Amino acid sequence: MAQVAGERRRLTSGVLAASLTPMMSDGAAHLDLLAEHCRSLLDLGCSSIVLLGTTGEANSFTILERRTILEGLLNRGIGADRLVVGTGCCAVGDTVSLTKHALARGVHRVLMLPPFYYKPASDDGLFAAFAQTIEAIADDRLRIYLYLIPQLSGVALSPDLVGRLVEAYPLQIAGLKDSSGNWQQTQVLCERFGERIDVLPGSEAFLLRGLAAGASGCISATANVNAKRIVELYKSREAQHASELQTSVNAVRAEFEKYPVIPALKAYLASHSGDSTWSNVRAPLVPLDSAERAHLDSALAKL
Amino acid sequence: MAQVAGERRRLTSGVLAASLTPMMSDGAAHLDLLAEHCRSLLDLGCSSIVLLGTTGEANSFTILERRTILEGLLNRGIGADRLVVGTGCCAVGDTVSLTKHALARGVHRVLMLPPFYYKPASDDGLFAAFAQTIEAIADDRLRIYLYLIPQLSGVALSPDLVGRLVEAYPLQIAGLKDSSGNWQQTQVLCERFGERIDVLPGSEAFLLRGLAAGASGCISATANVNAKRIVELYKSREAQHASELQTSVNAVRAEFEKYPVIPALKAYLASHSGDSTWSNVRAPLVPLDSAERAHLDSALAKL
Repeated sequence: MAQVAGERRRLTSGVLAASLTPMMSDGAAHLDLLAEHCRSLLDLGCSSIVLLGTTGEANSFTILERRTILEGLLNRGIGADRLVVGTGCCAVGDTVSLTKHALARGVHRVLMLPPFYYKPASDDGLFAAFAQTIEAIADDRLRIYLYLIPQLSGVALSPDLVGRLVEAYPLQIAGLKDSSGNWQQTQVLCERFGERIDVLPGSEAFLLRGLAAGASGCISATANVNAKRIVELYKSREAQHASELQTSVNAVRAEFEKYPVIPALKAYLASHSGDSTWSNVRAPLVPLDSAERAHLDSALAKL
Repeated sequence: MAQVAGERRRLTSGVLAASLTPMMSDGAAHLDLLAEHCRSLLDLGCSSIVLLGTTGEANSFTILERRTILEGLLNRGIGADRLVVGTGCCAVGDTVSLTKHALARGVHRVLMLPPFYYKPASDDGLFAAFAQTIEAIADDRLRIYLYLIPQLSGVALSPDLVGRLVEAYPLQIAGLKDSSGNWQQTQVLCERFGERIDVLPGSEAFLLRGLAAGASGCISATANVNAKRIVELYKSREAQHASELQTSVNAVRAEFEKYPVIPALKAYLASHSGDSTWSNVRAPLVPLDSAERAHLDSALAKL
C-alpha cells in the first residue's frame, strides 16, 4: 500500500480471494472453518479477502447473519485491513447499516452492489442510490469498490455512471470489481479508470491482460482452491513464463466453470480437506452430485 | 370467500390492488396516507390490498421498515384479512422472519418471491428454498401466493416447479401471481392450476381471458388509479359489454406503461390528489419529470 511519488495510490492490488462461506448442514456459517480458510489464503499470498461477496453466498444470509460473520472473523484474528466486505443490498437502508457496521469494526473497504431489484434502473437513479448511501454513511474512512456483476444483479453500471461517481466522490469511490466476464468491458474500464481508482477484474483469467490495461490486480473465486498458482502468476507478471502460468491458471478455472461455480468450489474443498462440511450450500444453490464431484476431481487431477 | 358445494374454495378472488407506498421526501413511509389510500381502494370494491409487493417498492425498504409499514396499516384499522403482504427476500431467513411477523399480526396471506440473487436457479434449489421457508415457519395458517415476475426477480418458476410445490404443500400453497406479462404462460398456469389454487394474473389486461381460463381474479398496479373501472369490469365479466370495459381499462394501463410504471402511478396521484407527497419514490426509481407528467395527464384526459 506504499505510495510511490508521482503515481496514484493503489489501495488494493494483487490477488484478492473472494472467499466461500463454509456452513453447517443447517446453513449456519462455520466461523472457525471460515477463519482458518481465510488465514490460509492470506498465507498463500492473497493480498486481501473479499468476505461476503457473491462467492460467499452473501445474499443468502440475513443482515444480522452478515454482521455476525464479519465479527466472527475479526474475533478470530483476521485483520480488518485484510478484508473487503460485501455490503450492497436491494434497500439503500440495509446497505448503509451493513457498511456502517463494517466501518465501526475497522473495515474500511466495502464491495457494493447497486440496489438490484428494480430494473431497468437509470443512471440517474443508480447515482442517487450511491449518493444517498455515501451521504448517509458520512464517514471519510469509507472506501467503496463498485460491484459490476450484471448477470446476477440484473443491473449494469455504465462507464459513464462510474465516471460520474468518481467525479462526485473521489475519496469514497476507491475502485470497482468487474465481474461481467466480458473482456471488452473490462478493458474499457481499465483504460478509462485504471489511473484513478483500483480496477479489479472479477476473474484471474483477465489478470495479465488486465494489468497491462491498467488494472490493479484481480478478485478471484477460484483463489479459494488455486491461490498459490494465481499468486505466482501475479508475482511473475513481468517474467517470460507469465503467459504459460496464465494458461495453466485458466485451465483450472475452466474446469470449475463447467458447473455452478460455488457448489463446485465447495465440493473440491470437501474432497481435498476431507471435511464434508465444505460441501454445504444455501438454497437456491444445490451441492454437486457424486457423479459431478468425481468428474470434476478426475479432470482436475489431469491438470 | 364462501365455498360452493363441489367447487374448490377460492380464498382470494376479484380485483386486488397492488398498493403503492406513499413516502415523505426523505423516503420514510407516510403511513397515514397509505392507510387512507388502502381504505379508499377497498371502498371502491377491491377485494384485498397487496401490500409491499413490487409496486409498493418493498425491496427498497429494510426488513425493519417493512414490519413497521405492516403494523402501521393494521394499527390504522385496515383488517388483516383484507391484506396480502409481500415477504419474499433474497435470504430465506429474511423471508421466514417477515412471514412469521405477518402471521403473528393475523395476516395469513403472503406474496412470496423466490430467493432472487443467485441465478440461474434450478428447480431443485428453488423447491428447497420454498420447502425450508414453509418448514421454518411451521404455521398451518400460512397461505402462500408464489410470485412469478422473472423480468425483475431474474428467476423463473416453471409450471413443473409450481406443480411440485402444490403437491408437497397443498395447504400452504394457496395460489400464485403471474406478472410475467406473457399471456401464453398465464394461460398455461390458469388451465393447469386454476382448479386447485388461486391463479392471479398480475395485470387487469388479462382479467377476462384469465377468468375464462380458470383465474380467480387479478392483482393490479393500475388499480391504484383506476380501481373503480377495473372492479366494474370484474363484476360485469359475464355481461355483454364486458369486452368494451376490458378495452377501456387496457387503454388506461397502456398509457402508464409508456413510463416507468411506479413513478407514473405516483405522479398521477400527486396531480389528482393535490398532494405532491405522492410523487416521492425511493432510489433507484426516479420521479417523472414535469414534461412526462404533463404528457401522461393529457393522454389520460382524452380517455
